Amino acid sequence: MFNVEEVAKKARYASYSLAVCSADTKNKMLECIAKELVANADGIIEANKLDVEALDESAKVFKDRLMLNESRIAKMAEGLYEIIKLEDPVGEVTASWKMYNGIEMRKTRSPLGVIGVIYEARPNVTIDVAGLCVKSGNAVILRGGKEAINSNRALYNVIKNALESNGFDPDIVGFIDDTSRESSKQMLSLDRYVDVIIPRGGDGLKKFVLSNATMPVIASAGGNCHIYIEKSADINMAREILENAKMSRPTVCNACEQLLIDSGIVEKLPYLVEPLIKGGCKIKGDKVAAAILNVEETVEEDYYEEHLDYYLTVKTVNSHGEAIDWINEHGTKHSEAIVTKDTDIADEFTRKVDAGAVYVNASTRFTDGFEFGFGAEIGISTQKLHARGPLGLKQLTSEKYVAIGTGQVRK
Amino acid sequence: MFNVEEVAKKARYASYSLAVCSADTKNKMLECIAKELVANADGIIEANKLDVEALDESAKVFKDRLMLNESRIAKMAEGLYEIIKLEDPVGEVTASWKMYNGIEMRKTRSPLGVIGVIYEARPNVTIDVAGLCVKSGNAVILRGGKEAINSNRALYNVIKNALESNGFDPDIVGFIDDTSRESSKQMLSLDRYVDVIIPRGGDGLKKFVLSNATMPVIASAGGNCHIYIEKSADINMAREILENAKMSRPTVCNACEQLLIDSGIVEKLPYLVEPLIKGGCKIKGDKVAAAILNVEETVEEDYYEEHLDYYLTVKTVNSHGEAIDWINEHGTKHSEAIVTKDTDIADEFTRKVDAGAVYVNASTRFTDGFEFGFGAEIGISTQKLHARGPLGLKQLTSEKYVAIGTGQVRK
Repeated sequence: MFNVEEVAKKARYASYSLAVCSADTKNKMLECIAKELVANADGIIEANKLDVEALDESAKVFKDRLMLNESRIAKMAEGLYEIIKLEDPVGEVTASWKMYNGIEMRKTRSPLGVIGVIYEARPNVTIDVAGLCVKSGNAVILRGGKEAINSNRALYNVIKNALESNGFDPDIVGFIDDTSRESSKQMLSLDRYVDVIIPRGGDGLKKFVLSNATMPVIASAGGNCHIYIEKSADINMAREILENAKMSRPTVCNACEQLLIDSGIVEKLPYLVEPLIKGGCKIKGDKVAAAILNVEETVEEDYYEEHLDYYLTVKTVNSHGEAIDWINEHGTKHSEAIVTKDTDIADEFTRKVDAGAVYVNASTRFTDGFEFGFGAEIGISTQKLHARGPLGLKQLTSEKYVAIGTGQVRK
Repeated sequence: MFNVEEVAKKARYASYSLAVCSADTKNKMLECIAKELVANADGIIEANKLDVEALDESAKVFKDRLMLNESRIAKMAEGLYEIIKLEDPVGEVTASWKMYNGIEMRKTRSPLGVIGVIYEARPNVTIDVAGLCVKSGNAVILRGGKEAINSNRALYNVIKNALESNGFDPDIVGFIDDTSRESSKQMLSLDRYVDVIIPRGGDGLKKFVLSNATMPVIASAGGNCHIYIEKSADINMAREILENAKMSRPTVCNACEQLLIDSGIVEKLPYLVEPLIKGGCKIKGDKVAAAILNVEETVEEDYYEEHLDYYLTVKTVNSHGEAIDWINEHGTKHSEAIVTKDTDIADEFTRKVDAGAVYVNASTRFTDGFEFGFGAEIGISTQKLHARGPLGLKQLTSEKYVAIGTGQVRK
């Protein structure tokens, strides 16, 4: 069996030197990986073909997600150059004060240490994740899915060779060359070497990770995102926001799945959803909405479902309070929006709605590391611990206290 | 069986209103609890007697930890008044910027939501934890140990009555009146209602929580803390720091357990540990140290043990690099110190040592919410996710993004 512990141990040891590398050194690491990627495109594509050919009939829909070509590989390399441009978060002093006894106290950012990432499907994750972890001073252990094992192995070998041949420690990026459930389980038990686990994939993977990990996990629950159109809303603005949030990319986690509308303006519904219907979007509604729109009535489960499709559920509410309670009960703490002209209600909505990102008069689709200005993201957290929303480089660090004394002892 | 889910559900619902309470309202809640505590001291002491009497012979050492009297109850009330004085972290804007498209973005502190605390022994935790959670806008679910069930129940009833009779929602503080393992397990499965679990107790409790919790956990691994005396150290300063860190309170997690000394100054050892020996501290050392001090030689396990006693392990190292590696291998990421006059080495030590608090020329005993100026603490984290070191009110919040637009949609 593949020796997972050995990889984790080496990553742990390598993480100590990486944690104190200068931004310049880390950028050189990324640069040599980017160059090696482009230089080895042919070999990567060849390995990728094995994966694509091995897809069974039922999985052919994933073919496009899995397939690599020269332009996709060039894009991975570009992604690394983008990360090079980002500011290094390590060493940033986020707070400082003098203690009553003269000790100088600083709170400084340092890497998390070793990050384990368990991911499914797309092989570009291998490069993205390695780039973000290295730039934030974290060693990383990659455990990809079986559908992409040949591609991932080829990409890992590129990383390893690039680091090694340029005099860097290749152990900062570890690769679990074993796609059995057992190898994941073993990785999740190694809290001695792995500080944090990030699962990237479906609900099944997330549950597996949460129930087996002995170390902290940063997980995302997907996005069952709502848009609430309050009665004072500018209806044209609401229509545009709804269309953007539902139709621009319905398969992503920040797309709108649920529309809440004030019962006082329910007659505007046909106008509001017109662009969706024209775009082929299926709509279901509660009794009132279904009657007005002449569509099927919703069942309870529809309100909890992340549709990930051209499909919208509509619910009428009698007050903004009801909308807030509804969202807190049915949402997944991802992205929630209100359209309103009433600033008091907007303020109450942003304070009371429990989500990583809360929008007033803007589309939920903005929840994204690039849009937020983080330059890149390793995922979007729907947890409340550590970090909510898009996870950029800063979110891959934690803050430690450094106390500089002159011999102080505690009374 | 006790209905754990009902308590959690009610706490979740109550948490939404609590999350947006003003500091003034939350302070009033704490004040009425403090008053009710003092007014009901007799009843609490009576209930506490049942617990103390029920202690079996082998547990008599815990008697002092468990016992409540009027002065201890007054101290709990005082603790609440101290929390009233602390600044409310909720609503603090920790960052703000304008997006490229004009959206105004703020990162603001909001409560975690519902915090579950599973604790052992001391009943004062019931009041401390309730106070800190309420002030930080979090609903809390208390699950104490069986040794203190009567005391905890009495304290909880005081909280409940105080809130209820003053017109506040009593569901913001939940109490699991069932000390079976099953009730804990059920609580740990309710990630739908409970956002975070904080275990406070021994290693067994922590492991139980980590392996059963479906929600994020903030845990502490205890403190196997080192003091490294580098060869340029001021020996008198080192002697004072060592004495303070080892002898002032050996049973606490920020006490020093391990001494690392540069082999170049190993002849100073007898002078360095003289105050410890006078104070009755047991010492073991590696070959070199044991020979010089004429004490027993250590075995490997001694270096991994949090002694929590008048007992110090001594290890000689040949360089500061060796000391750093040793600490990263054997420490528990709690508090680590170097005594040195060399600022370059000090700097390297603080950057490379992986711990919540790293000290230069100061005692490890300062790792404490009060000493750090947080005013109070709910525990000390040795995790790297979310928060390291002492957990004050700020650490009981997380930051969400609030985006105020004027109709922006994503291109």
